Amino acid sequence: MKTVHVHLSDRSYDILIGSGLLARLPELFEQYRVRARLFLIANSNVFKLHGEKLLKSLNAAGFEATQILIPDGEKYKNLQTLENIYTYLIAQGADRQSTILALGGGVTGDLAGFAAATFHRGTPYIQLPTTLLSQVDSSVGGKTGVNHSQGKNLIGSFYQPRLVCADTDTLATLPAREFQSGLYEVLKYGLIYDADFFDFLEVHLEEVKLRQTPVIEDVISRCCEIKAEITSVDETEADIRRILNFGHTFGHGLEAAAGYTGITHGEAVGYGMIAAILLSERRGYLDRATVDRLNRCICRIGQLPPISSLSLDAVLEAIGRDKKRQHDRINFVLLKQIGKTVIETDLDQVTLRDIWSGITACASINRHP
Amino acid sequence: MKTVHVHLSDRSYDILIGSGLLARLPELFEQYRVRARLFLIANSNVFKLHGEKLLKSLNAAGFEATQILIPDGEKYKNLQTLENIYTYLIAQGADRQSTILALGGGVTGDLAGFAAATFHRGTPYIQLPTTLLSQVDSSVGGKTGVNHSQGKNLIGSFYQPRLVCADTDTLATLPAREFQSGLYEVLKYGLIYDADFFDFLEVHLEEVKLRQTPVIEDVISRCCEIKAEITSVDETEADIRRILNFGHTFGHGLEAAAGYTGITHGEAVGYGMIAAILLSERRGYLDRATVDRLNRCICRIGQLPPISSLSLDAVLEAIGRDKKRQHDRINFVLLKQIGKTVIETDLDQVTLRDIWSGITACASINRHP
Repeated sequence: MKTVHVHLSDRSYDILIGSGLLARLPELFEQYRVRARLFLIANSNVFKLHGEKLLKSLNAAGFEATQILIPDGEKYKNLQTLENIYTYLIAQGADRQSTILALGGGVTGDLAGFAAATFHRGTPYIQLPTTLLSQVDSSVGGKTGVNHSQGKNLIGSFYQPRLVCADTDTLATLPAREFQSGLYEVLKYGLIYDADFFDFLEVHLEEVKLRQTPVIEDVISRCCEIKAEITSVDETEADIRRILNFGHTFGHGLEAAAGYTGITHGEAVGYGMIAAILLSERRGYLDRATVDRLNRCICRIGQLPPISSLSLDAVLEAIGRDKKRQHDRINFVLLKQIGKTVIETDLDQVTLRDIWSGITACASINRHP
Repeated sequence: MKTVHVHLSDRSYDILIGSGLLARLPELFEQYRVRARLFLIANSNVFKLHGEKLLKSLNAAGFEATQILIPDGEKYKNLQTLENIYTYLIAQGADRQSTILALGGGVTGDLAGFAAATFHRGTPYIQLPTTLLSQVDSSVGGKTGVNHSQGKNLIGSFYQPRLVCADTDTLATLPAREFQSGLYEVLKYGLIYDADFFDFLEVHLEEVKLRQTPVIEDVISRCCEIKAEITSVDETEADIRRILNFGHTFGHGLEAAAGYTGITHGEAVGYGMIAAILLSERRGYLDRATVDRLNRCICRIGQLPPISSLSLDAVLEAIGRDKKRQHDRINFVLLKQIGKTVIETDLDQVTLRDIWSGITACASINRHP
């Protein structure tokens, strides 16, 4: 087990990463002085896989734990599900002294975290992420919230968990595509913050894909360390935290243009990183050899779904809608070199049109490995 | 104009109190570097009285201000109204750079503040309280939220405003009963924290009831200073902030037992303070002369509505439900002396039964002045 500490004065907390952590939760909760009344929020799939057993072991150890089941899927990350969670919490007599457990991926973590942030003006919660994406990204940093019919994550809070326990064994049951989607975000940390980590991933990528300890534990820990460092100095994304959006401006545009079907968030970020890398080359920051090296590594993660049926105009329009909604300039994060970013506040549409065919071509690179 | 500064590190803010402040808002907003895009939330009554003129003057001064009207009344302080506010904000292109203005009483401040707390994970907001109760209490301290059908203020956040501007002229149009209801909370500050302030109120009560500067400005400022001092050292009500609940445990029970009709929150707190004072006497903290002096002062504020038709059992049951929901002990705040509190964590029901007739009798004290 590895421990990463997130420094945020009175909102500091630990992230525990390792194999077999869920089985050890009763003991870990004792150690972290977690109070007895627990409300475990999960969707029914995750609950069947991991929740049922966990609940039993917690209750056997003297905790008083009950489950709150939510429907599976991003489309249920809304105010209606949130209200249902409140109603259940109240009916079960939950209060500020209770602790909410978020067991699952990003959707569950965001929903349960926001419920915790707002129930009795703030109730403690613990993240138990079960996907690679949530273990390296969404469970760390305190971003919680729900979607509005007019846009994603428009409603939410910055609210830090008391503890994060990432059991790497839960990754074994993830579908390959979902695991790969998380790997794009893993690679992102190397690209924006840590050239050595990128080198490591480049060499050990096949090993990482086997999802085994100790490699997977090392990789997730390093991602959490990086995210913890960045979010500790900029909790509310006023400044440096924006570099975490590397690949996301373009990626969000792609996801929206595709109607959020046929491409996962991670895959869209994969494409977004390729776009940002090609733009970085055009700005003269990266040479051709480095660009090829980076894009090759991104494409080695897995098969990116083809996007040639999408029009760049639709992507740009979606980015524009985002921009309009943000009422300020789009931050486009580029690479100065591996591990170093530079933020440009205007999107260079002309150059983007120029490199569009280079971006869409990446889908075919890995087709015949 | 008086200024009270609330010390909360990077969440610090000023409270401005005075006559004619709403007319001076454009100039004050310039001074406080409030950004141009403003969304004014108010109910239609308050909007007609103060909002329309304010909006015109802000727009004339170069701000870009629009209104969001919400229905009038505590029963609309719910998730549905909140969702309507989000939808309007999004439709109008609001973002994290916008500023939300809460113009009105506690309901508007709680709703608008919570919308601000959660829109784009936190958007700046400014309180423009127009009732005595909101000027001395709810607009200060960062408590925001909405009711759930199962209980009041169960959903919310601690989220501090950027600025509070309390224009004492708005009090002129308040119905007498609403103004008096605020006075119970005013008196509370003297009783729990500042014996000199209580002395002042005791002497000048008739003058205060005329709502004129400079007296009313001095009184509101002192209340805000006290609340600012208390909430600065305990932002999230973990400790000393609980003394602000003086009169509220019993008061909430009364309100609930009465079905929230026929008695205002302030009046219920008035009765709650009388109950706490009588209990303090039974505990030997206060002598008979002091008890008479305090209760006389409370009753001089105005006619308390009769509560003899309520049964103490119903009140105790409502307090019990609160207690069950809180899953911990009820904090009953008593007075050790004027200006000094002591918190008891168990409600002495036997003594409370004993003094019930003393409490209900207070309604008749002021009936024939």
